[in-house]
Amino acid sequence: MFPEFESYLRSQTTVTREELQLICSKAVERKLRRKEAILQEGEICRYKTFISSGILRTYRTREEGSEHILQFMPEDTWAVDPESYNEEVRSNYFIDALEDSKILQWAKADFVALLNNIPAFKNFSEKIISANIYLNRQRVFSSISSTAEEKYDEFIQSYPGLFARVPLHMVASYLGVTRETLSRIRHAQTKRD
Amino acid sequence: MFPEFESYLRSQTTVTREELQLICSKAVERKLRRKEAILQEGEICRYKTFISSGILRTYRTREEGSEHILQFMPEDTWAVDPESYNEEVRSNYFIDALEDSKILQWAKADFVALLNNIPAFKNFSEKIISANIYLNRQRVFSSISSTAEEKYDEFIQSYPGLFARVPLHMVASYLGVTRETLSRIRHAQTKRD
Repeated sequence: MFPEFESYLRSQTTVTREELQLICSKAVERKLRRKEAILQEGEICRYKTFISSGILRTYRTREEGSEHILQFMPEDTWAVDPESYNEEVRSNYFIDALEDSKILQWAKADFVALLNNIPAFKNFSEKIISANIYLNRQRVFSSISSTAEEKYDEFIQSYPGLFARVPLHMVASYLGVTRETLSRIRHAQTKRD
Repeated sequence: MFPEFESYLRSQTTVTREELQLICSKAVERKLRRKEAILQEGEICRYKTFISSGILRTYRTREEGSEHILQFMPEDTWAVDPESYNEEVRSNYFIDALEDSKILQWAKADFVALLNNIPAFKNFSEKIISANIYLNRQRVFSSISSTAEEKYDEFIQSYPGLFARVPLHMVASYLGVTRETLSRIRHAQTKRD
């Protein structure tokens, strides 16, 4: 039914064919146009979202209007604001599409029921959450210890192929450096290579 | 038996007196001298640690020897390297005491059994883990969007009283700014106030 998601889940978990069918039966497929949002600041995040194709981003704005990108979510990853989803509080974040994208969404009640009924899916979900914890700790460490050059290198290694698909100013926003600094780093590396 | 921990847990959870006794019966109390470590880089983190009094920190070093502090853990908080503890892999971090401290430790097998046997304790543990996820996302956002002044203000608000107990160069390390920058911010604020 959802070939990208099915092959993703089969490769990552031991769910049976029947369990996979059950999981898919609760999903709603949506097509997003570039710039279309699935979460706006002030809303409650009520869905778990899987990205079948395209790229989404999680970002937040400051009072003066600047945008700060917390995360890029390309195909075969998940999008959620964990605090808003878990605690049912208004989100501080936006989630939107950077390319035309295809996503699957599960309403929270359905997703919780699936986790409770399918242990292999629950284990997998916990693995994803843990991996995000480790990643965020690494990102905090990197933010306090690395130079802008090192952050850029880490980004390229962690997300191969993403740089070509994302505008330069958004990579700069994700890294917390200015566009000028990122351009300078890119030029220096191109010269060096 | 462990008055600080018992009043902490009673105030935060609905565990019964019997459950509290069971939890305490599996804890080992340790006294740490200032600078004493409970986890070294390269070791596997095999304990959940509660800080009854004092302050611990989690830090990591880079090849050239610089120290970078990921977290301060004062009394009534927990210390663990989640990746090393969950996955049983060697840690990249050190955890040591900044003051003479008193801690309680649970071996992983005992702690897992307690979580499985005491639903209120499991809920509480999951709440702590979630709160850490939200905090780390906030810290990533702050690291890419805030000025050094704003990071300092956020630190003072999040950890009231900690600044006076921790050496200036360690707060600078936590914030990812130089000691000179932090001194300048402090002086400017003192003048302003």
